[in-house]
Amino acid sequence: MRREGLAIMAAATVTPESFGPAVALSCRECGARTPLAPDFACTECFGPLEVAYELPSGDPEALRAQIEAGPANIWRYAPLLPVPADVATRPNINPGWTKLVKADNLARELGITGGLYVKDDSGNPTHSFKDRVVAIAVEAARTFGFTTLSCSSTGNLAGAVGAAAARTGLRSCVFIPQDLEQGKIVMAAVYGGELVGIEGNYDDVNRFCSELIGDPAGEGWGFVNVNLRPYYGEGSKTLAYEICEQLGWRLPDQLVIPIASGSQLTKIDKGLKELIALGLVEDKPYKIFGAQAEGCSPVSVAFKTGRDVIRPQKPNTIAKSLAIGNPADGPYVLDICRRTGGAVEDVNDEQVVDAIKLLARTEGIFAETAGGVTVGVLQKLIKNGLLDPAAETVVLNTGDGLKTLDAVEPTTGLSATIRPTLDSFREAGLA
Amino acid sequence: MRREGLAIMAAATVTPESFGPAVALSCRECGARTPLAPDFACTECFGPLEVAYELPSGDPEALRAQIEAGPANIWRYAPLLPVPADVATRPNINPGWTKLVKADNLARELGITGGLYVKDDSGNPTHSFKDRVVAIAVEAARTFGFTTLSCSSTGNLAGAVGAAAARTGLRSCVFIPQDLEQGKIVMAAVYGGELVGIEGNYDDVNRFCSELIGDPAGEGWGFVNVNLRPYYGEGSKTLAYEICEQLGWRLPDQLVIPIASGSQLTKIDKGLKELIALGLVEDKPYKIFGAQAEGCSPVSVAFKTGRDVIRPQKPNTIAKSLAIGNPADGPYVLDICRRTGGAVEDVNDEQVVDAIKLLARTEGIFAETAGGVTVGVLQKLIKNGLLDPAAETVVLNTGDGLKTLDAVEPTTGLSATIRPTLDSFREAGLA
Ligand SMILES: [Zn+2]
Ligand SMILES: [Zn+2]
Repeated sequence: MRREGLAIMAAATVTPESFGPAVALSCRECGARTPLAPDFACTECFGPLEVAYELPSGDPEALRAQIEAGPANIWRYAPLLPVPADVATRPNINPGWTKLVKADNLARELGITGGLYVKDDSGNPTHSFKDRVVAIAVEAARTFGFTTLSCSSTGNLAGAVGAAAARTGLRSCVFIPQDLEQGKIVMAAVYGGELVGIEGNYDDVNRFCSELIGDPAGEGWGFVNVNLRPYYGEGSKTLAYEICEQLGWRLPDQLVIPIASGSQLTKIDKGLKELIALGLVEDKPYKIFGAQAEGCSPVSVAFKTGRDVIRPQKPNTIAKSLAIGNPADGPYVLDICRRTGGAVEDVNDEQVVDAIKLLARTEGIFAETAGGVTVGVLQKLIKNGLLDPAAETVVLNTGDGLKTLDAVEPTTGLSATIRPTLDSFREAGLA
Repeated sequence: MRREGLAIMAAATVTPESFGPAVALSCRECGARTPLAPDFACTECFGPLEVAYELPSGDPEALRAQIEAGPANIWRYAPLLPVPADVATRPNINPGWTKLVKADNLARELGITGGLYVKDDSGNPTHSFKDRVVAIAVEAARTFGFTTLSCSSTGNLAGAVGAAAARTGLRSCVFIPQDLEQGKIVMAAVYGGELVGIEGNYDDVNRFCSELIGDPAGEGWGFVNVNLRPYYGEGSKTLAYEICEQLGWRLPDQLVIPIASGSQLTKIDKGLKELIALGLVEDKPYKIFGAQAEGCSPVSVAFKTGRDVIRPQKPNTIAKSLAIGNPADGPYVLDICRRTGGAVEDVNDEQVVDAIKLLARTEGIFAETAGGVTVGVLQKLIKNGLLDPAAETVVLNTGDGLKTLDAVEPTTGLSATIRPTLDSFREAGLA
């Protein structure tokens, strides 16, 4: 009954232009195609659905010029995303076009000679890459006539959904474990949507959301990371587009990307392949490296032991935004890292903290724990000899250190305390 | 002796190109001119020194085109700033080009019909407008051969200085009251510079810094808000430039700007006047409104009582980044707000919190308390009839809510707590 309801809703607002160059959903496993709708699993094989395109053919120069004349946000890439051509004129949170920082100081400390860049997504509106994926999900939600934007979350996603719903005039209702830290509750609740604490852990929250989506009570609800997931995921492609455009329309040699569900890494690879196919960048080999925390390293373990199957873990790490013990896209991540000649590596919590401070001290970028994981893994990959320091490398910082102050607090503080006198200043050895 | 040292240091590195279009320091009070140097007070009358320019004359169209072809940060305005023409190629934190958000939802709630925009400076690298002023101070520090970047601070400035010093390879030493909240200490210390707690209050910290600057121990030290203040202050002009360029190279009718020392407001006015003089925007009247917290409202009180003299106050407000009881630029602010037909208004702490939540709920922008002050004052000015709701208005958010979570925490939380079942969900009335 709910299915029918959705179909009717969709029919009311979806036009051939609603999704721009997107033409269908296609199953990542069996390739079966199905119309663009709020669906996420293949009816043939239960595989994950993703967006399929008929991308613009023709002169790459003209497309590059069109993109460069676009706005300083992800909508400059509207011709490559499942959104209408006029998307930039509609209210949205307008994330993206974050800085690609040439990290010469960090490169020097790590011994990288081929050039190092940090793609710093803490510059997004709610200071994480989640704004990118939510912005696309919002467009799909509006197209499908959903009136409530929802998700399960333990942090970044809750804020991104709350802020985007506020700007776009959608109702929001976000589900979190009730025992979340007070600071994270405030960050998510300030946007004024419903924020519901669930008596249980994150798995309980997810189970509840799946139930709600199958119930009449969930009608008209767009769960950004469930029934809108195929659209949502496409937002991560914009990281690939921006990195290449900011490099002057060319591919880097190596990318280090954090792994939570693995979706971001697979979509960045998808984006890079699209740029090549469109002739927007010259084709050449690139290597993709995945980064995990040791306390939640199912993909890293599978990579290192040469297995194809991901064995789920119970997460125990300070990198909570990466703490998905059974990552849905894990097998695809393994495949990409192996195929491109990259690797998957993990670092422990102490190394995560050290890497956050290293990045802050060398480049003035204060990353959240996920950024500490990628920088820490970059460091380890160089020591291992798995990453070539003479090749051009891009490392992702996907979030903001202000959201995970706890991680660095025990080891970060005043270097001295003095009385307000020059004598006291000299005694402290600061002169 | 220190003076001589500085003069020698300066002679070693200052060239005619070092400060771009800037040609001298000039006294704001008596107009006396002095060469570009790390000076901040007029030797004739002790008035504040500011940067004087020979701005580019000639075709405004060509200048507009040059700016538009520049980088997506404040360096696009290098021809109008005291920095070398090649500034964008040097390592710096590269702030600016933050979003000018069309705030239609907020406008609707406030009854503004003439168009409302939020200039959202939380998008800067360390999430406050301080990155703009520090970036200019860094260039001056390098030109003068300073090796340590310093400041007194209670928050935002400490982070901006720490991050900029890290990126640019300068040593940093920041002075704060030792009893600052632990979170703020972590935010400032993570960049790895010296962070020194002073036994005393913020006034004691400032007094100590003044002593240090006059002592041989302070040689080679650039205090961004003391001996580099004339350069530092110019960074705020970029807010005016960006607002006008983002509006399509035109002036708004009304601007609402927070007042701490008052420097920002006066420099925005200076920037607007420069744009008119250069023919980059069409000349027309604009009104500037100043915003203070009731618990630190010396300028607002002077405005309302029709006095020219600012009577210092002992600050007591949650808007700590605006809590300067004796604002140095207060008289200039009064003059600008009166001359342009604007006003100065203040709101109490409860109104600040309400305004933070109003902005978050309507536009998905989570402002720090200073942003709550400006939005709250905007609301009050409309009720007072002092601000025209039919005129186009720009309101500034100068910082990020993640830095002042305490302000909203007592009144922001979960809307419900439920068991992970549909029954519990229905009972809570959320369906
Ligand atoms: Zn299938
Ligand atoms: Zn003078």
